[in-house]
Amino acid sequence: MTLVCYRCGNETENGARCACGEPLWLKTDATGFSWPAFVRTRSESELEPKQEPTSGLWRYADLLPTEPLPGVGAAVGGTPLARTERLDEYAGCRLWVKDESANPTGTFKDRGSAVGVAHTLESSVGADANGSWVGTVSHGNMAMSMAAMSASAGVSCLVLVPDDIPTERLGHIDQYDPELVQVEGAYGKLYYDSLELPGVRFVNSDTPYRVAGQKTTAYEICEAFATAHGDPAGSPFDGSGPGIQVSESGESADSSDSPDAIVAPVSSGGHASAIWKALRELREANLLDSAPRLYFVQAAACDPIARAFRADADEVRSVEGGDTIAYSIANSDPPSGNRVLAAVREIGGAVLSVSDGAILDAKRQFARRAGLCVEPAAATTLAGIRHLSKSGEISQDERVVAVATGTGFREQSASPTAPRSVPLSELAGRVRSLVSDA
Amino acid sequence: MTLVCYRCGNETENGARCACGEPLWLKTDATGFSWPAFVRTRSESELEPKQEPTSGLWRYADLLPTEPLPGVGAAVGGTPLARTERLDEYAGCRLWVKDESANPTGTFKDRGSAVGVAHTLESSVGADANGSWVGTVSHGNMAMSMAAMSASAGVSCLVLVPDDIPTERLGHIDQYDPELVQVEGAYGKLYYDSLELPGVRFVNSDTPYRVAGQKTTAYEICEAFATAHGDPAGSPFDGSGPGIQVSESGESADSSDSPDAIVAPVSSGGHASAIWKALRELREANLLDSAPRLYFVQAAACDPIARAFRADADEVRSVEGGDTIAYSIANSDPPSGNRVLAAVREIGGAVLSVSDGAILDAKRQFARRAGLCVEPAAATTLAGIRHLSKSGEISQDERVVAVATGTGFREQSASPTAPRSVPLSELAGRVRSLVSDA
Repeated sequence: MTLVCYRCGNETENGARCACGEPLWLKTDATGFSWPAFVRTRSESELEPKQEPTSGLWRYADLLPTEPLPGVGAAVGGTPLARTERLDEYAGCRLWVKDESANPTGTFKDRGSAVGVAHTLESSVGADANGSWVGTVSHGNMAMSMAAMSASAGVSCLVLVPDDIPTERLGHIDQYDPELVQVEGAYGKLYYDSLELPGVRFVNSDTPYRVAGQKTTAYEICEAFATAHGDPAGSPFDGSGPGIQVSESGESADSSDSPDAIVAPVSSGGHASAIWKALRELREANLLDSAPRLYFVQAAACDPIARAFRADADEVRSVEGGDTIAYSIANSDPPSGNRVLAAVREIGGAVLSVSDGAILDAKRQFARRAGLCVEPAAATTLAGIRHLSKSGEISQDERVVAVATGTGFREQSASPTAPRSVPLSELAGRVRSLVSDA
Repeated sequence: MTLVCYRCGNETENGARCACGEPLWLKTDATGFSWPAFVRTRSESELEPKQEPTSGLWRYADLLPTEPLPGVGAAVGGTPLARTERLDEYAGCRLWVKDESANPTGTFKDRGSAVGVAHTLESSVGADANGSWVGTVSHGNMAMSMAAMSASAGVSCLVLVPDDIPTERLGHIDQYDPELVQVEGAYGKLYYDSLELPGVRFVNSDTPYRVAGQKTTAYEICEAFATAHGDPAGSPFDGSGPGIQVSESGESADSSDSPDAIVAPVSSGGHASAIWKALRELREANLLDSAPRLYFVQAAACDPIARAFRADADEVRSVEGGDTIAYSIANSDPPSGNRVLAAVREIGGAVLSVSDGAILDAKRQFARRAGLCVEPAAATTLAGIRHLSKSGEISQDERVVAVATGTGFREQSASPTAPRSVPLSELAGRVRSLVSDA
């Protein structure tokens, strides 16, 4: 596969970074691509590999660089898009939530991990899968995702973690039995060093094959809106992940072929870059009348990309990151930061940051008004949308998709103020008053 | 809707239990039902409510008693079915895993909660949704699921928990902001008492509308196998939950229209009853050539149904349940226990129990060979399958589906033995030896 630099356009066959220093992504020809149809008229005997039964993100086989990964890797993607009307007032718009917690390890990371591991599997020609190694530099969601996808496919996985990682989180990664190595010293530097390590294909936060998998989040969102008219492809209505939900009032996102805005957290810039790449490809395929605006959100305590955007700078400078509850997006030196600036400037949108207080309140609203338990990093989306609608950047009637990137199940929930305790004998009376009070 | 008793056949319009003492379920006419097609040829203006765009379990609208629930409730079901070849040797058969952790609150409970809450919403005719109350007796997954589905739909939810519930778990439930009431006294007795409480529709573990939602797990499994031939309905291949995965070798479950066996944990017997009901309906619709055998698994420390099965008894007697890591299925007095006995005797199969040691080992294998982090209760399936294949009850070439009922993300993972710590300067050498050792 050919790799290309988004900025200088240089092409190469290998590597993750361009000579100009910017990250590379895979060159994809989307000309003539159309949304996959569901009806299969040809018998299996006639099917080409690419036309084998697929599910999840693999339905976009024509725009993906690998075959489906075996095991749970084949089940990645195809996540629900829920119409969450009860959050509209808080969000200040018509809100849909793309629930990435439905992926096998509970986060969007599985999309990039599955494609990254599949690439390694295919590259180890002749070699026994166990002879091939993938690696990643992460001590959070990406580490769990890479370890799980590798375990399921029978590929060896090396996970480099800092030596101060909490043992609790180490346990979540270790359960999938990767090769865990704690690295003493400048962990931040490892992102670049790891790409030079011998014999292991590192799938880091914004490397080309990860971006290739991560772009499918945006495909699914756009497909759900684009085909919401009962198009023969039928995708949004068939029980599949990309399916768009119909609201209480029977309203569906059918007044346009795309949402007005897509909002996601941003850390390294890999996912944000992937969403941009997906929109570029869909535009090339003439599947987008109007591209949604892109808003990427950071935690105020560590917001190098938002700072550069506010300063209208061309380059993101690393910052002295502070603590935030959204620790999984606290990247003080984002390797794809400049690419994110390019994305919002080309498509339209912004990079903004929100306070931990706003993130916590948004997380609470996700649970209380949408029934979704998200991690703080994912809650930055709703906090950002609320900020944007208050400032008039997003209007009440606009259709906005928040990408809820990860589950909050792995975190402790705040214990409630002790609820009333009632003797069994007094329960009926208690319930009667409760119901009449309401 | 008419309710009917599986045992004496008595019909009634209300209640959850038959005069004979056994649990009721909804009377469903499945004659003429066929797998939903995906292609939609009629314009939206012509669509009847039942034909509105649906996703997840709602695609089975013709066999469901309610309209889709708004919010995330509309995204319940449609979970992945993964072909997990790397577990075949351990399981002793050809294994597929139905990953119920992909539901919004991470467990199969969402299916029954969504239909149960939707029923309450529809029953409160004219009344503001906030004027209607649902309730449940649970201090675990079902409580979280009911609280989330209600929050998302704007229905008030009463959750009755014992007064000795761990505050940590109370927090997981409380985040969705239900009315939490701790009940002092005989908590076990509450299952029956709650059904008599005024003004609140209780959706307990095996009540009719919960069973109606829970049966969709079996629909999805059977549909995936039945349509794995590229049937025009195309469902298994379209990125939808019921999609069946193609294995590394290109093998798919296409040699029959149904799996040889479905294996699930059993606690109250509600889910097990629902799986049985689904198979009865699919048989009535002539969609099953051969019904899969049903195996239900309990933890040895609390296994009243398995005991009754082993003793070839007609009635399940309550037991003095001991502690088990599979606490979420430790029901010492299962309200649908007798119905589960009837299920395996009619369809064929068994109820068995496995030790905590076997459960822990199976949980480890789920993570290490399938990349799935499941709760101990869900791991009983793999432990049970291993036991059944060793005893010759399941053969190596049989196609078996394990229903992984819930996520393990909410539990602490065992911390690993401290991994090697390597100075940055020595990393390259360490990696080189690692890769060559492999």
